Amino acid sequence: MEPTAATVAQSVDAIWVMLSAILVIFMQAGFLLLEAGSTRMKNAGHIAGKTIFTFGICTIAFWALGFGFTFGNGNSFIGLTGFFFDGSGMQAEASYDSLSAAAIPISVKFLFQLGFAAVSLAIAWGGFAERAKLSVYLVFSALFTIAIYPVVGHWVWGGGWLGQLGMQDFAGSTVVHLQGALVALVATLLLKPRIGKYNKDGSSNMIHGHNQVYTALGVLVIFIGWFGFNAGSTLNATSGFFAYVALTTVLAAAAGAVAAFLTSWVVTGKADIPSMLNGLLAALVAITAACAFVEPWAAIVIGFLAGFITYFTALFFDRMGIDDPIYAFSVHGIAGIWGTLSTGLFATPELAKQVGVGSAGLFYGGGVHQLGIQALGLIGTIAYVLVVSFILLGIMKATMGLRVNEEEEVVGLDLSEHGSYGYPELLSAPIPTRSFKREGGESPAIY
Amino acid sequence: MEPTAATVAQSVDAIWVMLSAILVIFMQAGFLLLEAGSTRMKNAGHIAGKTIFTFGICTIAFWALGFGFTFGNGNSFIGLTGFFFDGSGMQAEASYDSLSAAAIPISVKFLFQLGFAAVSLAIAWGGFAERAKLSVYLVFSALFTIAIYPVVGHWVWGGGWLGQLGMQDFAGSTVVHLQGALVALVATLLLKPRIGKYNKDGSSNMIHGHNQVYTALGVLVIFIGWFGFNAGSTLNATSGFFAYVALTTVLAAAAGAVAAFLTSWVVTGKADIPSMLNGLLAALVAITAACAFVEPWAAIVIGFLAGFITYFTALFFDRMGIDDPIYAFSVHGIAGIWGTLSTGLFATPELAKQVGVGSAGLFYGGGVHQLGIQALGLIGTIAYVLVVSFILLGIMKATMGLRVNEEEEVVGLDLSEHGSYGYPELLSAPIPTRSFKREGGESPAIY
Amino acid sequence: MEPTAATVAQSVDAIWVMLSAILVIFMQAGFLLLEAGSTRMKNAGHIAGKTIFTFGICTIAFWALGFGFTFGNGNSFIGLTGFFFDGSGMQAEASYDSLSAAAIPISVKFLFQLGFAAVSLAIAWGGFAERAKLSVYLVFSALFTIAIYPVVGHWVWGGGWLGQLGMQDFAGSTVVHLQGALVALVATLLLKPRIGKYNKDGSSNMIHGHNQVYTALGVLVIFIGWFGFNAGSTLNATSGFFAYVALTTVLAAAAGAVAAFLTSWVVTGKADIPSMLNGLLAALVAITAACAFVEPWAAIVIGFLAGFITYFTALFFDRMGIDDPIYAFSVHGIAGIWGTLSTGLFATPELAKQVGVGSAGLFYGGGVHQLGIQALGLIGTIAYVLVVSFILLGIMKATMGLRVNEEEEVVGLDLSEHGSYGYPELLSAPIPTRSFKREGGESPAIY
Repeated sequence: MEPTAATVAQSVDAIWVMLSAILVIFMQAGFLLLEAGSTRMKNAGHIAGKTIFTFGICTIAFWALGFGFTFGNGNSFIGLTGFFFDGSGMQAEASYDSLSAAAIPISVKFLFQLGFAAVSLAIAWGGFAERAKLSVYLVFSALFTIAIYPVVGHWVWGGGWLGQLGMQDFAGSTVVHLQGALVALVATLLLKPRIGKYNKDGSSNMIHGHNQVYTALGVLVIFIGWFGFNAGSTLNATSGFFAYVALTTVLAAAAGAVAAFLTSWVVTGKADIPSMLNGLLAALVAITAACAFVEPWAAIVIGFLAGFITYFTALFFDRMGIDDPIYAFSVHGIAGIWGTLSTGLFATPELAKQVGVGSAGLFYGGGVHQLGIQALGLIGTIAYVLVVSFILLGIMKATMGLRVNEEEEVVGLDLSEHGSYGYPELLSAPIPTRSFKREGGESPAIY
Repeated sequence: MEPTAATVAQSVDAIWVMLSAILVIFMQAGFLLLEAGSTRMKNAGHIAGKTIFTFGICTIAFWALGFGFTFGNGNSFIGLTGFFFDGSGMQAEASYDSLSAAAIPISVKFLFQLGFAAVSLAIAWGGFAERAKLSVYLVFSALFTIAIYPVVGHWVWGGGWLGQLGMQDFAGSTVVHLQGALVALVATLLLKPRIGKYNKDGSSNMIHGHNQVYTALGVLVIFIGWFGFNAGSTLNATSGFFAYVALTTVLAAAAGAVAAFLTSWVVTGKADIPSMLNGLLAALVAITAACAFVEPWAAIVIGFLAGFITYFTALFFDRMGIDDPIYAFSVHGIAGIWGTLSTGLFATPELAKQVGVGSAGLFYGGGVHQLGIQALGLIGTIAYVLVVSFILLGIMKATMGLRVNEEEEVVGLDLSEHGSYGYPELLSAPIPTRSFKREGGESPAIY
Repeated sequence: MEPTAATVAQSVDAIWVMLSAILVIFMQAGFLLLEAGSTRMKNAGHIAGKTIFTFGICTIAFWALGFGFTFGNGNSFIGLTGFFFDGSGMQAEASYDSLSAAAIPISVKFLFQLGFAAVSLAIAWGGFAERAKLSVYLVFSALFTIAIYPVVGHWVWGGGWLGQLGMQDFAGSTVVHLQGALVALVATLLLKPRIGKYNKDGSSNMIHGHNQVYTALGVLVIFIGWFGFNAGSTLNATSGFFAYVALTTVLAAAAGAVAAFLTSWVVTGKADIPSMLNGLLAALVAITAACAFVEPWAAIVIGFLAGFITYFTALFFDRMGIDDPIYAFSVHGIAGIWGTLSTGLFATPELAKQVGVGSAGLFYGGGVHQLGIQALGLIGTIAYVLVVSFILLGIMKATMGLRVNEEEEVVGLDLSEHGSYGYPELLSAPIPTRSFKREGGESPAIY
């Protein structure tokens, strides 16, 4: 078959989205490093390993049911076709009418969307860290991928009611980040804080992550993945618009890192590195909804404020007794809310028209119309995810239990759940033995 | 020159294969982390460094001779033109008739194929780990790249007899993985087990890898590289078929991780992380031959069985006295054999026809014809690689010696071969000193 | 709008350069690992974190001013338009006439060029490592991006006098690497050596990096990024020439690693891993100017000599009392000079004509004409960067101070500048306490 300019253009779009899918799936490496680096040595192997096997479960579940629930033909609430994805259609098929607009191979779309679902799940795990049972990861990977993520995904991107209303969530501040963060929040509430996190008087101890190189490297890998996440969400490379989306994304990220860095420095006299890294991530989360709708200067403002706000909300939730080891709810939840609202403020009429979703924001003469839709989307998402997460995790808590026992937690999940330390030469003998004696709190960081 | 749709289509194919080449070369980072993480601290710098300089030697040797032997014009056994690759042809040239079908720049093909040869070599090193002399790495890098890899490569992909018979090995379960694994097996036999691995009664000690975060991260990087490995082997992006290949690859990988994870959990009561990671890799190895020929459900079955089988073969070879530190022969060899056979079972007639290699498998009405060809390819490969590896490594053993002496091995290759520890602050004084006293076996893991 | 072959060709170029931009930005992860691995544990969190926040500052500064100074319309010395880059032009605009030849989205070019500026800055930090104050990183990130990098960038690539003369610096041996290296040299001179580096008799102690796995992994990530760095500098994928550039780059890198490896082995009897890694990097630096102008065999010669030379210059500067913790001036400076000159020797007339810059080198009948231009470019660059760096860093030294105090340096920058160790479980109690007592020099490596 002789190629034509139109068919070649489709293949250009296809490899751009395929590259983006690879980058988004590579974000798993970033989350692996971020979560492992932000927690203690005794749990590092567990965290690294669970990232990978939960990705495996998520993949099978998304293939079987999740993709169909999200993008299948159905009603305003959920998709109902396209289960056990057979990949046989090289183009979008009738089973997935919400995807048929872009003429790229449907297997590319599946892999791209799988990456998104898996990122949302990786965010959720933040709230389970260092104390949930291994069986919880096994079961909840499937539940999240089937019963939580696809519903809001369908609402916004699969032809559901929020998409019909014109909600602007270009690459998923709400769909991906806020959803994962809400689950993380519910998990922290049901699991309770880690041993040693809070003192009897309610004051909080800092439990330092064991490796800031991992944390920083993880954040950088996640940042790189975001090129696929946001700029790939154009599903199109032939218009050149993907580059504009990448630009606003990078500017926002830079502003968020600088904001949190300066805030931390001014507030405490020391420029805390994990806070700076969280600021960068928060800015990326915030710009994810808005990246295609706003101007570069607005992207910088959105990112800067995300970094600034998240610094304080992380402290606030910590003091409220919520033990969220990697600050998932602040970084992905609060920043996700801010980002979803921000496009209701900063969306320009030209870009909203070009993307073809929603209308101009408050600061560009659009009034509060778009802002109202954004808020409605947030309320719907928060309500659905909180309720369903509480029910599912609540049932799991009542039946199988969510948390390892005290001895297992003190010893660490590497040993208790997997039978060997992630760092057997560093933890095998002297260091943990000594640490176990320090339960009085002398050094809670290395419990 | 004004572009036409046909010339632009060529450039789309070219950047897709170039991206794939980059991903496959990036797999070196994965192997670096996997092998370093799966072995002990005292050898970590050595392992990381040797990955890179052996890649350098492999590159020069593949440029000088290996590429010509593999893809040059020649006979059914070997190629005989195109040495000292000059890269001057922007398109495939007469020197490489087996490559001329796809009209992409020949330098792209060279880089893509270099990545494959280097992966095969990286697999082989698994069998040498923690005891081979540095000079062995230097010499054998060149020998492997010139005398082993190109022969089977030519047989299957370079116009040789197995390709002519219609052997289905889409991206190299046999060519890349089984070859490397067979060399690793020969190396373990000639090098003998590491000190402390086996007790006098023949029972085996577990020598834990020192860093499961590295191991898991390495596996994830390798997994990402596999998008290039398999989906790039279409050498074509304009048909959209590359996305289908990526889909089957990801599904198989997920199934393999889940299979090994559950198997380990059921068998031992603990879900062993290295076993789970090996299951994922084994599934990728297995689907590599079959990825373009089978349906998604079959990919899941192939991957699941690969993860399941490999769990037991790894235990089996360990008990048989074969000290294969990263289980290269199970993960890349047994799974490579299974994968090569699997396409003889599951290949569909439509896909075999579309790819244009071989015919339908046993379960799709093809009878045992294709299965027989696959088995023949395995027999030929196993015979050639075992014989030549034994000869080459045997000569090396008799002349220069393969293994460091006992003191060097106990101290570690970082110090003995390179003059400094990879972790000088962790190993300089207290820890190894204490370890050296434990030779009785109190803690063989950190010898 | 119906696509035509010409518009689709533009989009192919656009995604190729976008991929390249992503790879070049990903090099930050490589520099993070390289610098952290090559220094001590007590500074690892600081180094990892500063890589990211200085990238953030560099991004904002390049957006505001640096991009306009480099590529804006102006005179032979500097660009003067296009500040506060608005990204609104999907194609190159009148504001950036030096960019208008290639018809790719200007946001792609911005991101690609941002990556280059940030790499140059990352190189410069090598000279500051383990002793500069955090505030220096904050201030100098902006100064470098605004006042140093854009000037030479404009001279060579932005329409300035060196570009007009036909200087061949395809991807920045001079513009990116030598500039960063010169700043690093000035920094080492103004900051003075680290405590414990030199003894009273002037002899030098080796301060080992704490993690060779990080160092090797970092070098591999940087190597991967170089595919974007060099092959992306074609700004074009439709001619297929990008693949040729990638080929010469990989061959040179391999030769450099082998050269340094063998040199180290012959000279000291041990094959030093950091030296081998530096050889690979030096070869990449050297081939960066020449990659589009030379034949494969010449690339191997250039890379081999770069690895060989750099081994000795690193030793030489160390003995001269210059404490350059990651050998930035040798690896990026000396090799950058060699690479810039090498194209004046090895450039072929055909390739110079194809690229459209300069003419043939000395060995290809071009006489000393091109060599003279290359030397002139080097002299201009060295003069400008040394003078401006001394002035800017000199003013900073006189006003805010460059270096932390002795106690802060001994404790490490993680604790003194950021308030927590990067490895709190390894450094919190026993190890550093003991180390502090060893000030006599018993083990200077872990001071």
